[in-house]
Amino acid sequence: MGTALAQAFLAAGHPTTVWNRTPGRSPELDALGAVRAETPGDAVQASPLIVVCLLVDTTVRDTLDGIDLTGKVIANLTNSTPDQARVLETTLSAQGATYLDGGIMAVPVMIGGPAAFIFYSGDSAAYERHQADLAPLARPVYVGKDAGLAALYDIALLSGMYGMFAGAQHSLALMQGEEIPAVDFAEKFLIPWLTAMLGTVSGMASDLDNPPAPGTAGSNLAMQAAAFDNLIDAAVAQGVDPTLLAPVGDVLNKAVAAGHGDEDLAAMVHLLKTNG
Amino acid sequence: MGTALAQAFLAAGHPTTVWNRTPGRSPELDALGAVRAETPGDAVQASPLIVVCLLVDTTVRDTLDGIDLTGKVIANLTNSTPDQARVLETTLSAQGATYLDGGIMAVPVMIGGPAAFIFYSGDSAAYERHQADLAPLARPVYVGKDAGLAALYDIALLSGMYGMFAGAQHSLALMQGEEIPAVDFAEKFLIPWLTAMLGTVSGMASDLDNPPAPGTAGSNLAMQAAAFDNLIDAAVAQGVDPTLLAPVGDVLNKAVAAGHGDEDLAAMVHLLKTNG
Ligand SMILES: NC(=O)c1ccc[n+]([C@@H]2O[C@H](COP(=O)([O-])OP(=O)(O)OC[C@H]3O[C@@H](n4cnc5c(N)ncnc54)[C@H](OP(=O)(O)O)[C@@H]3O)[C@@H](O)[C@H]2O)c1
Ligand SMILES: NC(=O)c1ccc[n+]([C@@H]2O[C@H](COP(=O)([O-])OP(=O)(O)OC[C@H]3O[C@@H](n4cnc5c(N)ncnc54)[C@H](OP(=O)(O)O)[C@@H]3O)[C@@H](O)[C@H]2O)c1
Repeated sequence: MGTALAQAFLAAGHPTTVWNRTPGRSPELDALGAVRAETPGDAVQASPLIVVCLLVDTTVRDTLDGIDLTGKVIANLTNSTPDQARVLETTLSAQGATYLDGGIMAVPVMIGGPAAFIFYSGDSAAYERHQADLAPLARPVYVGKDAGLAALYDIALLSGMYGMFAGAQHSLALMQGEEIPAVDFAEKFLIPWLTAMLGTVSGMASDLDNPPAPGTAGSNLAMQAAAFDNLIDAAVAQGVDPTLLAPVGDVLNKAVAAGHGDEDLAAMVHLLKTNG
Repeated sequence: MGTALAQAFLAAGHPTTVWNRTPGRSPELDALGAVRAETPGDAVQASPLIVVCLLVDTTVRDTLDGIDLTGKVIANLTNSTPDQARVLETTLSAQGATYLDGGIMAVPVMIGGPAAFIFYSGDSAAYERHQADLAPLARPVYVGKDAGLAALYDIALLSGMYGMFAGAQHSLALMQGEEIPAVDFAEKFLIPWLTAMLGTVSGMASDLDNPPAPGTAGSNLAMQAAAFDNLIDAAVAQGVDPTLLAPVGDVLNKAVAAGHGDEDLAAMVHLLKTNG
């Protein structure tokens, strides 16, 4: 991801200094004009805006530990939890930095392209000052002063994505060994079907904002819970471990047992809240 | 769903006889010209093609038990497992019927519309004969003579859908209580993001058909496993039960432990197969 970000800065004409733990990675950056720093401290000194994208929060803390960040804006695009982002803001502020946290909503090949966006939160003045500088990476979306908000939005979308991928992985596992190639199954059936069903996610969200009248569900949870047993039984018969889908059945059954059998999928969202 | 199917037949000008356990349901069908049968046996006698859509497999078996089905084509659109469909084909054939199994890929409001389709499997001659009659319900897609195949395709797509819905439910639960209304979050962020990420499902499928060279993953599983811990931690901190997503972390960790840390999401599909 760091390579893709540096490429996007360089392609946009920004003078760009790069540092990476293992030297010599991503030689393609040299031809684009990247300056290589020997140490994280050198990299920090080279520019007013420092974009950090490392593996996890502790990697960022260790890498920036003890470095003078006076007057620098740190935009940390490493995946973090909201709490990690809030704590890091405090730590790096004490080292003199102004902090922006970011959540990258793209895989590397999407960086610089039209579908990519990055959530930012933290210091709003720093965001205003550097919004245009950051735009070549991906469309910037500022979600608030609380440094943890970008991570919250990021993780909410990643959670949605991992659910979708889990469904796709289970679905593809069911069809492995059948005559149809996986790509044909995905492109002819799975992707068009999920695209059509994505439309109903709006309805689920709208049911949360404005609970519908009882008995108006087009696909009631009692029916869904009954059909769901078939999904698990069919997986086992087909030689597929149903582990990724099994909790859906548990939550469906819990919803029906709690009296929501005549409601639709939004009822399950409330059951996930442990704080009422 | 039965109401939507009858409406579609009537709208297409097909003389339609309906039966339902609880009499008098769906009064809107009367004005469209539906004929009401008193018993399942009467309903069967009224037409050469009988479409069955009840709750579960046992409902269908009990409803058709002992009825003479000589010369009739039964198209059973009730959700079933592949094995249930195969056994039902044998049972109803012994009662004189020719059997088609079907899997409806639509919610009721989509019936008769452009995105809806129905998988069929079973007797190919009966399918040829009635394909045009069935078309007003939804685009018919015949997947083979094995009566269980429609259910397999149906369940593969439903499994994908429930994964996607689980992700969306978890995502919406994370944002409940935040300032942004659920519909705005869904329409501005979650749905566009899932739409963009759906594109990568093609890549996952293509990696299954043609395993990629090692080390070429744009999003390696070791990085994903590290970031995934943040998703669970953030859910707990936000007061959301991570039950729907937790198995994704288990399978990610299992993949990394099995040496697939430098591969992409397709590696997880192989781990789901219990029969190698
Ligand atoms: N790839 C994606 O699809 C994607 C999408 C959105 C967000 N992200 C996030 O972006 C970040 C980077 O992901 P990636 O895909 O680039 O992962 P990656 O390919 O595994 O790269 C990890 C980077 O972190 C460095 N690193 C790891 N441990 C380190 C340590 N102890 N000290 C210093 N540097 C260390 C690595 O340096 P070496 O070269 O020396 O190993 C490498 O530069 C992660 O937080 C990820 O969650 C990734
Ligand atoms: N709705 C969807 O989104 C959807 C999508 C695809 C497939 N399907 C499948 O379509 C089928 C019907 O779903 P639905 O949404 O119409 O469910 P539903 O609204 O709950 O209707 C169930 C139907 O089954 C009948 N029934 C239940 N138990 C019965 C019994 N013991 N004897 C006779 N009839 C009985 C009910 O009759 P009463 O009126 O007398 O209760 C009713 O007509 C299910 O297999 C479902 O999985 C539904």
